[in-house]
Amino acid sequence: MAGALQRLIKLLRQLPGIGEKTASRMALAILAAPDNYGRALAHGVSEVVERVHPCARCGNLTELEICGICGDSRRDPGLICVVEKVPDLMAIEASGEYQGLYHVLSGVLNPLNGTGPEQIRAAQLLGRLDSGVREVILATSSSVEGEATALYLKQHIEAQGITVSRIASGIPVGGELEYADQNTISRALAGRRTI
Amino acid sequence: MAGALQRLIKLLRQLPGIGEKTASRMALAILAAPDNYGRALAHGVSEVVERVHPCARCGNLTELEICGICGDSRRDPGLICVVEKVPDLMAIEASGEYQGLYHVLSGVLNPLNGTGPEQIRAAQLLGRLDSGVREVILATSSSVEGEATALYLKQHIEAQGITVSRIASGIPVGGELEYADQNTISRALAGRRTI
Repeated sequence: MAGALQRLIKLLRQLPGIGEKTASRMALAILAAPDNYGRALAHGVSEVVERVHPCARCGNLTELEICGICGDSRRDPGLICVVEKVPDLMAIEASGEYQGLYHVLSGVLNPLNGTGPEQIRAAQLLGRLDSGVREVILATSSSVEGEATALYLKQHIEAQGITVSRIASGIPVGGELEYADQNTISRALAGRRTI
Repeated sequence: MAGALQRLIKLLRQLPGIGEKTASRMALAILAAPDNYGRALAHGVSEVVERVHPCARCGNLTELEICGICGDSRRDPGLICVVEKVPDLMAIEASGEYQGLYHVLSGVLNPLNGTGPEQIRAAQLLGRLDSGVREVILATSSSVEGEATALYLKQHIEAQGITVSRIASGIPVGGELEYADQNTISRALAGRRTI
């Protein structure tokens, strides 16, 4: 096989969820597409790597100093939702339900691999909490590390007299109770509300 | 979301088998990777588009005039295996069982969408059949179009006094007879051999 093709397949395989077959199908599709597609893709990759970086305030991805969400005056600056990573922020944005701001930690506390508060933009979060902030919603995952991170942040944020909340764990909408794992069922029961 | 990121996700989504979620995970992974990965990927895409093209003889992909298989003197020039597309050739090569040459049709006969012999490199195949060729193996798919293409080629190749064979259809190795479709079972029965 052509060397350039093999090199591209090898590069594509390094992406998450892309195996040998998908990488080679992708490389062949790039080749089979009209010439300007390949050029646009190469340009698109370079552009992203050169221009996109974390927002100086919240850690979301942006091409500017401050991201579109932080810069949007219609969003509620009194509410900050803390997430582990950018895809989590994207998922919440896609729901269209949230009108506050975000803070992307870019990780979770994990003593085992040496990830402490300094590695996860925790100080930047605490530094953002001025008198205008009413509530911080902790949306880290329900893993051990996600819970530990939430607990750590809760202690430091409450010390500043700000309400701290945690997103609900429970049975997914449309999910079957029968197939839910034990932890999810315990959480769903513990988090029950009167109706 | 950053415009450059959205543009890259849109480009990636145009590839086969890549949906919205995979495209955005890929774009974020490209961004999260060390800087030189993105540059290497952009370069890899450009390189493939600029340098790789079909082999002038067999239609396989190559960066040279003639591909590595056609140029390999250890391969048997008396045997030509005809495939629909480059991934089929790659699959046969991966089996390591075949030591002859190939001919990539880049399509199959399909009167419904106007694909005639001129569109599928059939004339190039017939033009390659000099006195050194003993046998042509037709490895087009067992679809209606693949069979029609095989029949068309058989008639023209046999007219030149060359043996024509067709790859076997049957139950895949390790496949369950119970789950095979009716056509495959008919073919497996019709293609039975004394042992």
